[in-house]
Amino acid sequence: MGVGAALATQDPPRTPPLFLGYKGAGWVWGGSGPVAGAVRRSGSQSLVAPSWEGCSCAGSATLPGEMQRAKKGILERLDAGEIVIGDGGFVIALEKRGYVKAGPWTPEAAVEHPEAVRQLHREFLRAGSNVLQTFTFYASEDKLENRGNYVAETISCKTVNEAACDIAKEVAKEGDALVAGGVSQTPSYLSGKDEAEVKAIFRKQLEVFAKKNVDFLIAEYFEHVEEAAWAVETLKESGKPVAVTMCIGPEGDLHGVPPGKCAVQLVKAGACIVGVNCHFDPETCLRTVKLMKEGLEAANLKAHLMSQPLAFHTPDCGKQGFIDLPEFPFALEPRIVTRWDVQKYAREAYKLGIRYIGGCCGFEPYHIRAIAEELAPERGFLPPASEKHGSWGNALSMHTKPWVRARARKEYWENLLPASGRPYCPSMSKPDDWGVTKGAAELMQQKESTTEQQLKELFEKQKFKSNIVA
Amino acid sequence: MGVGAALATQDPPRTPPLFLGYKGAGWVWGGSGPVAGAVRRSGSQSLVAPSWEGCSCAGSATLPGEMQRAKKGILERLDAGEIVIGDGGFVIALEKRGYVKAGPWTPEAAVEHPEAVRQLHREFLRAGSNVLQTFTFYASEDKLENRGNYVAETISCKTVNEAACDIAKEVAKEGDALVAGGVSQTPSYLSGKDEAEVKAIFRKQLEVFAKKNVDFLIAEYFEHVEEAAWAVETLKESGKPVAVTMCIGPEGDLHGVPPGKCAVQLVKAGACIVGVNCHFDPETCLRTVKLMKEGLEAANLKAHLMSQPLAFHTPDCGKQGFIDLPEFPFALEPRIVTRWDVQKYAREAYKLGIRYIGGCCGFEPYHIRAIAEELAPERGFLPPASEKHGSWGNALSMHTKPWVRARARKEYWENLLPASGRPYCPSMSKPDDWGVTKGAAELMQQKESTTEQQLKELFEKQKFKSNIVA
Amino acid sequence: MGVGAALATQDPPRTPPLFLGYKGAGWVWGGSGPVAGAVRRSGSQSLVAPSWEGCSCAGSATLPGEMQRAKKGILERLDAGEIVIGDGGFVIALEKRGYVKAGPWTPEAAVEHPEAVRQLHREFLRAGSNVLQTFTFYASEDKLENRGNYVAETISCKTVNEAACDIAKEVAKEGDALVAGGVSQTPSYLSGKDEAEVKAIFRKQLEVFAKKNVDFLIAEYFEHVEEAAWAVETLKESGKPVAVTMCIGPEGDLHGVPPGKCAVQLVKAGACIVGVNCHFDPETCLRTVKLMKEGLEAANLKAHLMSQPLAFHTPDCGKQGFIDLPEFPFALEPRIVTRWDVQKYAREAYKLGIRYIGGCCGFEPYHIRAIAEELAPERGFLPPASEKHGSWGNALSMHTKPWVRARARKEYWENLLPASGRPYCPSMSKPDDWGVTKGAAELMQQKESTTEQQLKELFEKQKFKSNIVA
Amino acid sequence: MGVGAALATQDPPRTPPLFLGYKGAGWVWGGSGPVAGAVRRSGSQSLVAPSWEGCSCAGSATLPGEMQRAKKGILERLDAGEIVIGDGGFVIALEKRGYVKAGPWTPEAAVEHPEAVRQLHREFLRAGSNVLQTFTFYASEDKLENRGNYVAETISCKTVNEAACDIAKEVAKEGDALVAGGVSQTPSYLSGKDEAEVKAIFRKQLEVFAKKNVDFLIAEYFEHVEEAAWAVETLKESGKPVAVTMCIGPEGDLHGVPPGKCAVQLVKAGACIVGVNCHFDPETCLRTVKLMKEGLEAANLKAHLMSQPLAFHTPDCGKQGFIDLPEFPFALEPRIVTRWDVQKYAREAYKLGIRYIGGCCGFEPYHIRAIAEELAPERGFLPPASEKHGSWGNALSMHTKPWVRARARKEYWENLLPASGRPYCPSMSKPDDWGVTKGAAELMQQKESTTEQQLKELFEKQKFKSNIVA
Repeated sequence: MGVGAALATQDPPRTPPLFLGYKGAGWVWGGSGPVAGAVRRSGSQSLVAPSWEGCSCAGSATLPGEMQRAKKGILERLDAGEIVIGDGGFVIALEKRGYVKAGPWTPEAAVEHPEAVRQLHREFLRAGSNVLQTFTFYASEDKLENRGNYVAETISCKTVNEAACDIAKEVAKEGDALVAGGVSQTPSYLSGKDEAEVKAIFRKQLEVFAKKNVDFLIAEYFEHVEEAAWAVETLKESGKPVAVTMCIGPEGDLHGVPPGKCAVQLVKAGACIVGVNCHFDPETCLRTVKLMKEGLEAANLKAHLMSQPLAFHTPDCGKQGFIDLPEFPFALEPRIVTRWDVQKYAREAYKLGIRYIGGCCGFEPYHIRAIAEELAPERGFLPPASEKHGSWGNALSMHTKPWVRARARKEYWENLLPASGRPYCPSMSKPDDWGVTKGAAELMQQKESTTEQQLKELFEKQKFKSNIVA
Repeated sequence: MGVGAALATQDPPRTPPLFLGYKGAGWVWGGSGPVAGAVRRSGSQSLVAPSWEGCSCAGSATLPGEMQRAKKGILERLDAGEIVIGDGGFVIALEKRGYVKAGPWTPEAAVEHPEAVRQLHREFLRAGSNVLQTFTFYASEDKLENRGNYVAETISCKTVNEAACDIAKEVAKEGDALVAGGVSQTPSYLSGKDEAEVKAIFRKQLEVFAKKNVDFLIAEYFEHVEEAAWAVETLKESGKPVAVTMCIGPEGDLHGVPPGKCAVQLVKAGACIVGVNCHFDPETCLRTVKLMKEGLEAANLKAHLMSQPLAFHTPDCGKQGFIDLPEFPFALEPRIVTRWDVQKYAREAYKLGIRYIGGCCGFEPYHIRAIAEELAPERGFLPPASEKHGSWGNALSMHTKPWVRARARKEYWENLLPASGRPYCPSMSKPDDWGVTKGAAELMQQKESTTEQQLKELFEKQKFKSNIVA
Repeated sequence: MGVGAALATQDPPRTPPLFLGYKGAGWVWGGSGPVAGAVRRSGSQSLVAPSWEGCSCAGSATLPGEMQRAKKGILERLDAGEIVIGDGGFVIALEKRGYVKAGPWTPEAAVEHPEAVRQLHREFLRAGSNVLQTFTFYASEDKLENRGNYVAETISCKTVNEAACDIAKEVAKEGDALVAGGVSQTPSYLSGKDEAEVKAIFRKQLEVFAKKNVDFLIAEYFEHVEEAAWAVETLKESGKPVAVTMCIGPEGDLHGVPPGKCAVQLVKAGACIVGVNCHFDPETCLRTVKLMKEGLEAANLKAHLMSQPLAFHTPDCGKQGFIDLPEFPFALEPRIVTRWDVQKYAREAYKLGIRYIGGCCGFEPYHIRAIAEELAPERGFLPPASEKHGSWGNALSMHTKPWVRARARKEYWENLLPASGRPYCPSMSKPDDWGVTKGAAELMQQKESTTEQQLKELFEKQKFKSNIVA
Repeated sequence: MGVGAALATQDPPRTPPLFLGYKGAGWVWGGSGPVAGAVRRSGSQSLVAPSWEGCSCAGSATLPGEMQRAKKGILERLDAGEIVIGDGGFVIALEKRGYVKAGPWTPEAAVEHPEAVRQLHREFLRAGSNVLQTFTFYASEDKLENRGNYVAETISCKTVNEAACDIAKEVAKEGDALVAGGVSQTPSYLSGKDEAEVKAIFRKQLEVFAKKNVDFLIAEYFEHVEEAAWAVETLKESGKPVAVTMCIGPEGDLHGVPPGKCAVQLVKAGACIVGVNCHFDPETCLRTVKLMKEGLEAANLKAHLMSQPLAFHTPDCGKQGFIDLPEFPFALEPRIVTRWDVQKYAREAYKLGIRYIGGCCGFEPYHIRAIAEELAPERGFLPPASEKHGSWGNALSMHTKPWVRARARKEYWENLLPASGRPYCPSMSKPDDWGVTKGAAELMQQKESTTEQQLKELFEKQKFKSNIVA
């Protein structure tokens, strides 16, 4: 039974009953009828690319737990050649909604405003996500007490991670989604702490994930393959499948290790799924995953591929990614990708052999829906939220104004080059390029807030870039 | 006691208890302490512009109802010179979240997915909104059954409007916000129906608003002043204060009536608050409200001024507004305004004498928060969501990377000209300009879906514009 | 006999003999054959717009002089409905060639490097110009000794003006072109001198033009209609036809006089031909001339219309024109119009009823050729330089690379939106807007060089604009 | 004695006598005084980079000929560490002036309009060029009869080459410039002819150069190193020094040979000076020359380096260079570099160790002057044309408008990011990328004009690119 159908029975009552089918130019929702039959396009199986031999990770077929009974595990799905759709970016989306603070970017909202986190999970689920990542990004103990952050002290690392697991598991029941516990890069590593210390940091989050019995684990957002491998090794202690993504581009990690070598090292460390997330736009991320794929092939290793890029255009980024762009994080709006950009991304990712396709910062629910809609022919069904979206704009045929109705077609949107409405702005930015990485004094963890004096020194160091007017 | 303080007691428990105060360069949230004292900036009263003599609408001081007891009515506030912050755009935000269909743009989500509508109301409230508009845009009976829309038939106009009122009232209790029932432009008017018929359409929604006892009424999104005046006259039947906004620019309504004359006609029809919403960017909207203000002054009339612009840059729009832009509605991303653009807008609106300041399509909660933050010195308090926002980026001082910490200051963000990351796109669009208005065959209401043949004719008529590649 | 034919006999011998004819998609040069027959397109007379009743200026039919015998005067031509093609911009072109100094912009090259001035005149003649303006722009005595300029003292105003006349007359003999003596705006006026003083300045140049017996006179580049009228009145003393152009846009002159009123005042002062030159791009200039035309019609006056715009795109200019743009004068390159832009301009100018069509700063010979090529169907012949130009790119069919041959057609060039190759630059500039005009201290004539102290004060006053990075 | 001084005595009389000197912020022309002393900046010798051991080409010290007596040969200069400034682009400049036809791009103007060619040579000389290249680009016999070109048949290859030599030699006498005979890529090679046939083509031009006794030889504009080496070998038969430039970028020649290898092969073939010309912007060309330099160093070979880039910004070009850009050749205007861009280029080229610094297509005299001005501190003198140019805009201090006087300084121009005034145009182009090279049917030489049928096939093949609207 497809996701759409599964959800149809669990969603709040909807009027009228809806179903979907594929009619030539696009998928449409109709009036009534047998769901299952309509959902699966005849012969859709033949469109599913045959999977290569599965990775032999322990646990891939043995996910326990009462409510997961009906659900296939992440490796079952990928080994079977299914497309797994990830979710989008929580910290950026919740910052805009008022629940996350840009700067620390920590996820205490899981405790302070669970209804907001729950609603965002639900929206991604409706949009087609097959994985709900626990909202535990930067929820490591050292990050929660860095540079004046109050969370470690007043809420506690354990409480945040537990709350995040509870919310994700609760929403996952509403559809066919797995729950993945997530860890990410630590201030400890950047401050030069050793392997044992860094692994201890990861282990604290892992303890919660194990207790809450999440479906699998993701180590994401790593700038250095060394730390990523430590994370994978730690997460593997749980016996659950481990996915790992680095936030690197084609130039490789911040120590200069190229993507192909990173992938090899991570698979050897125990990851079944490898790829990239964050820091670069879809096009750049796909180029990076391609290099990873080639590296694995050259080393005769196998792993599933994964990509969760930004929803921001970043052709002008260097090695450090969008953090270097002058617009990060409060003026990225002109760079936000459209749903059509995402459809192109999903298609290209699929062609490249990637089967775990999601997004990161900037990906809103409608972006995830665009992945699901683009790959609906291969998957045989549409996500629930497509009930409120005309494929390739075809619902514009219901618009009052005739010239907007004239936009109800694929060719229009596929070929549009959208204007910015900002005549005084450039098209590209000269990124900052400070070239500091692990071990640099300015990257050290520091419990106290940044002082005025420290800020002044930074302001002076900052070379104003081309599109900032003094 | 300020809004922030009021909310502090009603919000879900938050750890640690927070308060806010103004410290030189910006407003900050601190650890603990007496709220009321910290909230009101000493001398902030003197910053509040003295109000001109209030409009003599009936009911301004007599809003009944148990839960409203502590709340001042809309006219009490405006007459006292207070700044009233509106909310943002529901249809665009909920389309991205997966609950509204672009094309019909109707608000059946209030019935189908109340949790999603509730959450968005709550986010605007947290961001600082003093008014929650019922999600009843395009909820007129004729719109709900136009061009294949199923809502009128299967859910009913009454059900949608009632659900929307219930949700708004429920959330309004969580803070210091009023509930406004809203009506908007009708297909009936565009199809050439007469005054009686059009007023009957409005009256059906008004019956619900009266029964649910909303605090006041807004007639919004009118392209023709004639229809707007009919709406005002109908809403005035309730005895509640009526605000009215037209979606026009400096060139005036679609029949060529200039903004100044529109304002005069609407105040004469009974509106206490007049202004513009939607269709144009903040800068253009302010130019239009300025013309309205001058028209009213010339006619020796008084009314409060209101502006709820788009959160999209539209310097290239003609009379018809952003609907004419090739990017509407699925490729507007590069035009989204930043929070800093909104702060400029809020300041300019305030300087112009506008005291009801909100947003329309594209305004997300963080945009509304930007209004509240810009005008915090005048108001004496910050909104709850500022707990998660460093004024002018100052929370970036907690960021891991030093060059991002170097952006923790006003001058940086105020002067940044953000790049689009789209080197092949132009900066401005040549808008469609079909020049059809009320009465044109292509604007007629039509219950059935647009046919393939009708679409083909439109596709042919559509002249592909400069930034669409064939 | 057409210009092309006339020139064919006077040009240096060319191998092989060429002729031109109109063949459907464009005008082409062929191998050999009877010129006259091929040149005139049958029925081309009917394409020539009928002239309205000529202006009754003295002298229009009585231009004396031995070598002019075969040439029709400027008014004879315009009265007969002929299109008169002006020339392009000398100061900008000769600055790039190394003979004019940006800043003073004075024409001493006529004395110092006559061969360079002669060559540029010849190029415009070959390109199709029917008028050669003497290179006497800013050759008034007060300008030649302003702010440290050495010319008045060491060469003398008279010498410069005489040399310029001699060169223009010499080259004019090589084709069917008239010679026009030109005067322009004076520092004396900007310094607040009175009518008598300013007229005396003009009269010094006029004495040379009279002695050299030029064909007619042009008063050009006036920012204030008052001074332009004084110039016209002075030039009329000669009895020769007088044309006058102001460097204003649709907002009118720097004292706020609208274009329609300017035109009326200038015709009343004695001008037979009125229009605009310099300061704005072709599109803006045409809007201004349209306003002049409407002003004349409303006043029941008649005059020939003339336009000589910039060859720079200036949609972002205010009242003061391109001088306000941050790029003036050393970074205007990205704004240079293409030949195709000029063809559009020529067509629009013609449609508007303008019959004296030329260019100003930025117009190179190939831009003038584009006017002549666009209007070849109406005129019945091509200019000599079209021997080296395939109409609408058709000579690209001789290119080595096949994809360049694929560009040998009108549709390609007509629809191309050329990229700038400058991704960090904006599309538009925020112009300076100092708002000073006649009488302001900073505009006063000053014989001595600007001092370091004066410059410092200016630097401080200058507000760095949006696309200048400090 | 410096160039400026040398010219001062030979130039047409100028009033008043001028000299130049270096005064802190820039070089200036003054009133009178001893030239030699003022010209050479004390200590400027120390700024001249020490030359590495000279290349042992025959003839470097033995250039015969009566008029060359006072002139040092090209290798004498380069071996002594002098900066040699090349000239700019003739075909593009003369196309704009009306003497060259875009498409064939052949130089018959040397015969048909010698005065125009002479004037352009003179302008480059005044701007500072130390080398006048004979206007013999594409003057090979096979090119002069390609695709309908009439020149070979009616004028003859020999006549064109002879005329070009005569003009260059005549103008060279006016200053301190050498004459270089030039050959370029042939249609024969692209059509797959063999080494003997291609060398025979070069030899025909070489015969003229030998007879006219030019100072040295340049083989330029080669897309394939194989053909370039054949050219060098042929030219070496004369015993004169041979310079060679390829029109390649960092990706190497069209057969995939990287720049470093190309350089090695060319030096082994006998070239004393190697580098790049045309096809790419200054920045890209310098990256390519850097690769050449590294290739030579790795091979332990020595040669002087040379760069003659485009004066167009081409960051968006692929391997094939600007010919692939949709704007080539009739809409390149927005890409033209400013004089300040050229100053940056000259400085970077100098830093890289390049000592033969010139330009190619798009370089106008003022661009060459910018090279000479930037390197004046190293050379100790300014070119004659700087008499009409204020270094870094300082002559703007003589401008009438105060805000333009405020631009009379280096920081202003150095930091300006010029706008295009084209809001509907993109910043970058997606180039054509047909990927055909030597031997492809579409590249074959063809005496007859391209037929309509051939053109149609090309038009269909052409994929319209992103910024061309259909």
